[in-house]
Amino acid sequence: MRLSDVAGKVGLTFTGHDIEVSGVNTLALAGPGQIAPLFSRKYLPQLAASTAGAVFCEQKFAPAPESGRSCLMAGANLKLDWARVVALFARAQGCLSGVSPQAYVHPGAELGEGVTVYPFAFIGPRAKIGQGSTLYPGVYVGEDCMLGQGCTLYPNAVLMAGCVLGDRVTVHAGTVIGSDGYGYAQSPQGHVKVPQVGTVEIGDDVEIGANTAIDRAALDATRIGAGTKVDNLVQIAHNVQTGRHCLIISQAGVAGSTKLGNGVVLAGQVGLRDNITLGDGVQVSAQSGVGQDLPPGYIAGGSPSMDMMTYLKVTKSLPRLPELMRRVRRLEKALDPNDSKESGDE
Amino acid sequence: MRLSDVAGKVGLTFTGHDIEVSGVNTLALAGPGQIAPLFSRKYLPQLAASTAGAVFCEQKFAPAPESGRSCLMAGANLKLDWARVVALFARAQGCLSGVSPQAYVHPGAELGEGVTVYPFAFIGPRAKIGQGSTLYPGVYVGEDCMLGQGCTLYPNAVLMAGCVLGDRVTVHAGTVIGSDGYGYAQSPQGHVKVPQVGTVEIGDDVEIGANTAIDRAALDATRIGAGTKVDNLVQIAHNVQTGRHCLIISQAGVAGSTKLGNGVVLAGQVGLRDNITLGDGVQVSAQSGVGQDLPPGYIAGGSPSMDMMTYLKVTKSLPRLPELMRRVRRLEKALDPNDSKESGDE
Amino acid sequence: MRLSDVAGKVGLTFTGHDIEVSGVNTLALAGPGQIAPLFSRKYLPQLAASTAGAVFCEQKFAPAPESGRSCLMAGANLKLDWARVVALFARAQGCLSGVSPQAYVHPGAELGEGVTVYPFAFIGPRAKIGQGSTLYPGVYVGEDCMLGQGCTLYPNAVLMAGCVLGDRVTVHAGTVIGSDGYGYAQSPQGHVKVPQVGTVEIGDDVEIGANTAIDRAALDATRIGAGTKVDNLVQIAHNVQTGRHCLIISQAGVAGSTKLGNGVVLAGQVGLRDNITLGDGVQVSAQSGVGQDLPPGYIAGGSPSMDMMTYLKVTKSLPRLPELMRRVRRLEKALDPNDSKESGDE
Repeated sequence: MRLSDVAGKVGLTFTGHDIEVSGVNTLALAGPGQIAPLFSRKYLPQLAASTAGAVFCEQKFAPAPESGRSCLMAGANLKLDWARVVALFARAQGCLSGVSPQAYVHPGAELGEGVTVYPFAFIGPRAKIGQGSTLYPGVYVGEDCMLGQGCTLYPNAVLMAGCVLGDRVTVHAGTVIGSDGYGYAQSPQGHVKVPQVGTVEIGDDVEIGANTAIDRAALDATRIGAGTKVDNLVQIAHNVQTGRHCLIISQAGVAGSTKLGNGVVLAGQVGLRDNITLGDGVQVSAQSGVGQDLPPGYIAGGSPSMDMMTYLKVTKSLPRLPELMRRVRRLEKALDPNDSKESGDE
Repeated sequence: MRLSDVAGKVGLTFTGHDIEVSGVNTLALAGPGQIAPLFSRKYLPQLAASTAGAVFCEQKFAPAPESGRSCLMAGANLKLDWARVVALFARAQGCLSGVSPQAYVHPGAELGEGVTVYPFAFIGPRAKIGQGSTLYPGVYVGEDCMLGQGCTLYPNAVLMAGCVLGDRVTVHAGTVIGSDGYGYAQSPQGHVKVPQVGTVEIGDDVEIGANTAIDRAALDATRIGAGTKVDNLVQIAHNVQTGRHCLIISQAGVAGSTKLGNGVVLAGQVGLRDNITLGDGVQVSAQSGVGQDLPPGYIAGGSPSMDMMTYLKVTKSLPRLPELMRRVRRLEKALDPNDSKESGDE
Repeated sequence: MRLSDVAGKVGLTFTGHDIEVSGVNTLALAGPGQIAPLFSRKYLPQLAASTAGAVFCEQKFAPAPESGRSCLMAGANLKLDWARVVALFARAQGCLSGVSPQAYVHPGAELGEGVTVYPFAFIGPRAKIGQGSTLYPGVYVGEDCMLGQGCTLYPNAVLMAGCVLGDRVTVHAGTVIGSDGYGYAQSPQGHVKVPQVGTVEIGDDVEIGANTAIDRAALDATRIGAGTKVDNLVQIAHNVQTGRHCLIISQAGVAGSTKLGNGVVLAGQVGLRDNITLGDGVQVSAQSGVGQDLPPGYIAGGSPSMDMMTYLKVTKSLPRLPELMRRVRRLEKALDPNDSKESGDE
């Protein structure tokens, strides 16, 4: 593909020679036939040393024509434009098509047109697999599951019975959807399981990372809103409801029945307690723990969490706490010179 | 089944019409043929609007007879009674029985009566699978494993060699039991593996969530006591010993050789260091980190943990730490007006 | 094997009878034909009660000859010597050899000599599996992957397309390598995926625990340096680079593009933010969160992290914060007896 083709397809302009381009790579690794991105000023020294045939960057960083390097100029949304450039060259994973005779497809399952089922995938009775979906090896789709069109379930992803996926849902390897919620009643004989008879419903365009767990509801359904992106190793407990376009980053955990509005961002290793509600656009910083409802737009930090401005001040003060204790002790002695208490380990 | 049958089977009483009931659902979703639970006063408004044919609740919340709604009245243990009601309607997952010809069962394995082995499950030599157990697709049972009666291993659950499960053990999808403990000796050439030659022993009635990891012991065995319930994405390191009826909630991690008494509760994202002992009934609140032994009944919070009462006070004080620093500075200046130190960023 | 053989093979000396030994076990469980380790003084009472035929310990703890117990005496590196003793008796897991006809091996894959492929493993086109490697059931090796010699992929381990493993790499069950990095561009229509077209490269002698996730790079490669040991349930995001001989312990998470030097130690549940650099030999204590670059040799604790000495003092002071607030209030009143502000909840 020529650089002019790339520019045309993504609606951008370019300068310099209309070179033939075969792909994208970093400034450090790209060769004469590749496009490398320059995301900010701090990479300019790398650009100087790069052998990339073309650079993708904001207009203000475009190399001079005499540099001999072509330039694909980003528009108003640098990262989005880059995503579209990369998409031109990205090759989908996978190597087979059609339904493998080494898969298990229950005769009572329904497969849409163009469905790919790899060897060792399992599809239970009454499951419906939407057109153009792909199930990699080791995938388990339990009875009564419904998958929309264009879904991708990577190796060893598991959908327990009755789970529902919208269109274009991607589930990465090893993720489990529809495992039983953690619900027990206490009895003199120990913990008695409350059967988890609900399901999980995943909206359109949701992507879920690797080795994540999303539990089925006790009753009704655990729901992940359309466009939400869930990272690796995340825990979503029973009856959680997330809004649309949330970002739930690696190792975060959301306890039972908690509700997230639209566009909520949970950073890595965040924990949310059960039965709380986070309003639209709430952001929670990494490793924080939230124990109560948060209004729309709130930015939370800390465990337990406080508002972000307070949290930043607290984290700045905290290393000086031991010194503060010594200073208070000095003040006490200054006010009462007869005070002979040991100051201990202050 | 009629409401009178339900009441009879779980030993409860009911009021109103003896309607035909087909299942359970939430107050919001239940229809005329379903029972919906009312767990507390705060859901009374939902009850008013519900189309549920019957409500399950404490006697004090029972609808008036003229409401036309039947009522199944909970006994002394609301949640336990509800668990038993739900169990009447819950359908077990799964769709096959018998041993699939598409499974791999080593000729040296022993399968009890009524064992179900799905396609693509693997059972190694000398493994014994107790009567009535079910192994879903992708399950791996290594050589010399022993499973009791009525065990369920959901898709892609893995038991490495020599692991022992009691009766009625449930392992959810993607969980790994018997992976090597993390044990290395330092040498000038780098980390040298200490072979992990112990096993894992899981007691009766243990349930383990999805994508959890329980490592085999270096020597002897890692043990999970009978009746203990482990949630998703939990880490149990080598040689950990848990008592009976513990609750270990999602994303908690227990480091090597640590011992838990009976009835210990670890909330979500808790971390316990290695080689410590928590007494019977210890409770650790979410995201806490415990670094030393805790006596029976202790309630711990914080990272590093302190007793819960102290922790609650600390978390209340903490947001005011920056203000406290300013106040101490003011006191210092009041006592020594010539003090001209910069107060810096206090 | 006789004790003299053991001693000879690991280059140690022994005292007492040259007994026949069949294995290793704990002091509590070892019988007359086994060697039990005594790692420190605190286990001496267990030694007295042990029926172990031989004890492995430092010379100073060697039993008197009249005890009748043999002793294998550790050299300068107790734990390393023990690792070598255990290795003499450790049996590798697994029960099959050769390539199972129930596996799927793409005709375009290349398998070295002595490769074992269990039933239900999948190997894609152009994948190269180095000599003597073993792929357990449910393993997925995507197209264009390259594995060195003597690699072991335990059940349900997943290598997505194009990942590269060095020699003697061990991947425990359920771990996913090469899942897509978490990269999205914001647009008015929601989060748009940035295709992740890089790969993962794992150095020689790396061991990776169970249910861990290592994402492929956006461009270029995510890299794990030779000799690094990664525990269970760890998150390694796209474009992370680790040095050689790092230890990354359970449930730790490293965000995108962060770089670790050689010999870095991340304890359990640590979180590192994206785009930072930790120098050689940095150690981060459990549950800490690191948000900025750390120089070589730095020891960090806390979330957000500070230097370890400060952190230890802070954690000692923190439980006394509520008391400190009361003391400051008293000082304020002492200085201004007319101060009648309510002291509130101090």
